[in-house]
Amino acid sequence: MLAEIITIGDEILIGQTVDTNSAWIARELNKIGVSLLRIRSIKDERESIVEALDTVSPDASLVLMTGGLGPTRDDITKKVLADYFNTELKRDPEILQRIEDFFIQRGRDILESNRMQADLPVDAIILPNLMGTASGMWFEKDQKIFVSMPGVPYEMKGLMEREVIPRIKENNELPSIYYRTVMTEGVGESFLADRISDWEESLTAKNISIAYLPSPGTVKIRLGAKGENLEDLKKKVDAEIESLYAQIGSHIFGENDISQEDAIADMLLKSRLSISTAESCTGGYLAHLITSVPGSSAYFNGSVISYSNEVKISQLNVRPEDLESNGAVSKEVVEQMAKGVRKKLATDIALATSGIAGPDGGTEEKPVGTVWISLAAKEGVFSKQFLFEKNRDRNIRRSALAALSMLRRYLDGRLF
Amino acid sequence: MLAEIITIGDEILIGQTVDTNSAWIARELNKIGVSLLRIRSIKDERESIVEALDTVSPDASLVLMTGGLGPTRDDITKKVLADYFNTELKRDPEILQRIEDFFIQRGRDILESNRMQADLPVDAIILPNLMGTASGMWFEKDQKIFVSMPGVPYEMKGLMEREVIPRIKENNELPSIYYRTVMTEGVGESFLADRISDWEESLTAKNISIAYLPSPGTVKIRLGAKGENLEDLKKKVDAEIESLYAQIGSHIFGENDISQEDAIADMLLKSRLSISTAESCTGGYLAHLITSVPGSSAYFNGSVISYSNEVKISQLNVRPEDLESNGAVSKEVVEQMAKGVRKKLATDIALATSGIAGPDGGTEEKPVGTVWISLAAKEGVFSKQFLFEKNRDRNIRRSALAALSMLRRYLDGRLF
Repeated sequence: MLAEIITIGDEILIGQTVDTNSAWIARELNKIGVSLLRIRSIKDERESIVEALDTVSPDASLVLMTGGLGPTRDDITKKVLADYFNTELKRDPEILQRIEDFFIQRGRDILESNRMQADLPVDAIILPNLMGTASGMWFEKDQKIFVSMPGVPYEMKGLMEREVIPRIKENNELPSIYYRTVMTEGVGESFLADRISDWEESLTAKNISIAYLPSPGTVKIRLGAKGENLEDLKKKVDAEIESLYAQIGSHIFGENDISQEDAIADMLLKSRLSISTAESCTGGYLAHLITSVPGSSAYFNGSVISYSNEVKISQLNVRPEDLESNGAVSKEVVEQMAKGVRKKLATDIALATSGIAGPDGGTEEKPVGTVWISLAAKEGVFSKQFLFEKNRDRNIRRSALAALSMLRRYLDGRLF
Repeated sequence: MLAEIITIGDEILIGQTVDTNSAWIARELNKIGVSLLRIRSIKDERESIVEALDTVSPDASLVLMTGGLGPTRDDITKKVLADYFNTELKRDPEILQRIEDFFIQRGRDILESNRMQADLPVDAIILPNLMGTASGMWFEKDQKIFVSMPGVPYEMKGLMEREVIPRIKENNELPSIYYRTVMTEGVGESFLADRISDWEESLTAKNISIAYLPSPGTVKIRLGAKGENLEDLKKKVDAEIESLYAQIGSHIFGENDISQEDAIADMLLKSRLSISTAESCTGGYLAHLITSVPGSSAYFNGSVISYSNEVKISQLNVRPEDLESNGAVSKEVVEQMAKGVRKKLATDIALATSGIAGPDGGTEEKPVGTVWISLAAKEGVFSKQFLFEKNRDRNIRRSALAALSMLRRYLDGRLF
């Protein structure tokens, strides 16, 4: 089964909103063996919507539309769809009740524009939206399914999970598709590709696709195969993934879009070790990554973010003379930060970061992007200097990921 | 001038990558009066690329393509473009030198696949990429401009800023376009729309467009107008923005996509007040937002992230008996956290958060999404309870934004 996505809304075309919905939908479709042919983002205008519907690929039998269903005046999709599919809008008493309940539960006043969201096309299957007030609509025409959903991500996701995916699975015999993705860190895309080039060459003959997906600090490698029998696909892709581990295993921190913080969560839970952080240049982002994992309170005690030298001295017992002679971005200071927070918050492990995130503060000797990272544990203290980039956001992110990478190597027994 | 974007890459269609490039490009085009007709994401395959080029709208005179130019084997765009525009690839010695220098500077080994990135179409204008090794390519055909750029965001951005935008401006007479966006917080989209509905009604006759762009915790309201004379457009849009301030000014925290943390940065710098945070449920995210602003070290001293009760007691002087009797998520505890960190890190203002981010940890009395936020300053301590949502990420984000909102009200003199 082949599908297309059409996202409707001027906010995407003028760049005020990043389209995160499409990537999520694409992943969910892939899981059930539906492949995306194309994603189109178009204007919230009658002509554009009609043109997009008229030019759906003959190969696509499913068209998922998001956006253009809000209560405000700039949303016109619903009327256009009713006309396009030759039906009319009628107030749906059940949905109206649901909308009224939605407002009552939240103690908010209901407006006529909210009630109008119960005006729905007579010839569509209405998909109730439990997270908001814009219903989903399922149309069928010329052997194709067209589904319209609101653009608010969690409302769209709720509709996909509860209504759209189950209906697609029910009504179609879907081919098997199997992907496996390994997550690597600490090595660049072309270096990776070179190290595994002979093996990669051999994949084509086996009908296995490979893709490299780089992002700051990590490269994902994805293998995929498509066919009739899922077990056969699994067997052949799994064998190649095993071969990949044999070649570059030490750079692999997990699979299937796991984040480094999730991978580390598992390791910390198993080892029953606790952790704290002392952060200067990462400014809380490292702690945020760690605490973005549900249940992280089982191993994360807390953090001291020491953005000023005074806080480094008073809260982490960094020696003023070392700050004076070596500067805050130095081996001496970052190691004292790691040891200081480990003792203060009484954890088994502590991570510390100190660097020049930029855009200002760089010198010839220590340019923007210079970062020291340290790990303190019962075995002692380990630290390493990095030189990242000129961009503040990327430096913060790469510093936090490098700290997690150091932690992973420690938990793997490869640091000391 | 009308434009289209084509993003090339299977990674977008299988959802492994979110297309952030298009939103950025859209914003840059808008600034120079170029409007986007459509964004398409297509497969990294000859047929799909050719089909997309063949079906560019007759109205579009600019086509910006991103992706498909990396050194690895899954990227085929360059060859397809050379064929499509009837030219051939030839190794460019100047670009080869640039690529070799790029690797030497970084102390990395150069591979043949990297050198092959200097094989470039003879009949295209080559746009040098200072951030990476994949050059941009500028083709012209049938009165249309086609530009191909790498998909790595910062490489694409460098090419757009240094090469593409200046060339577009040079070669075209562009119409004027003027947008102004105000950022609101603390009030929902339909409530806002209702409060300003009469005024909104009046905009159509004035040829001013309005859009509401909600995201967790904030709603952007964007007014826009297009015409010949930029000064006229500015005058009429600015007058309506003034009217908007008169109607809902207390909810507006800034303009033109400013974040709350940026808005607050300006206020803190002017007031010369310093700040610290004590974070439980936000786990460092609040400090991260504050420190994501360049120069934040001028007002941010640091933070104590007290994820465990022990750290709340030992580092923030929270009374064990209050933790025992009221629980960590309570007015008593969050106020002691705020006062504790303010004293400890010696700042004028302190913010504290304590809540149940979820997905676990909720009770009937304190369900997931219950969050206490407190601000301590010389005037005393203020605190407020919130009930957000079931989703952990959104709770963390909304808690941090609510804390920033409280800080803004304090700095505005509206809290005490």
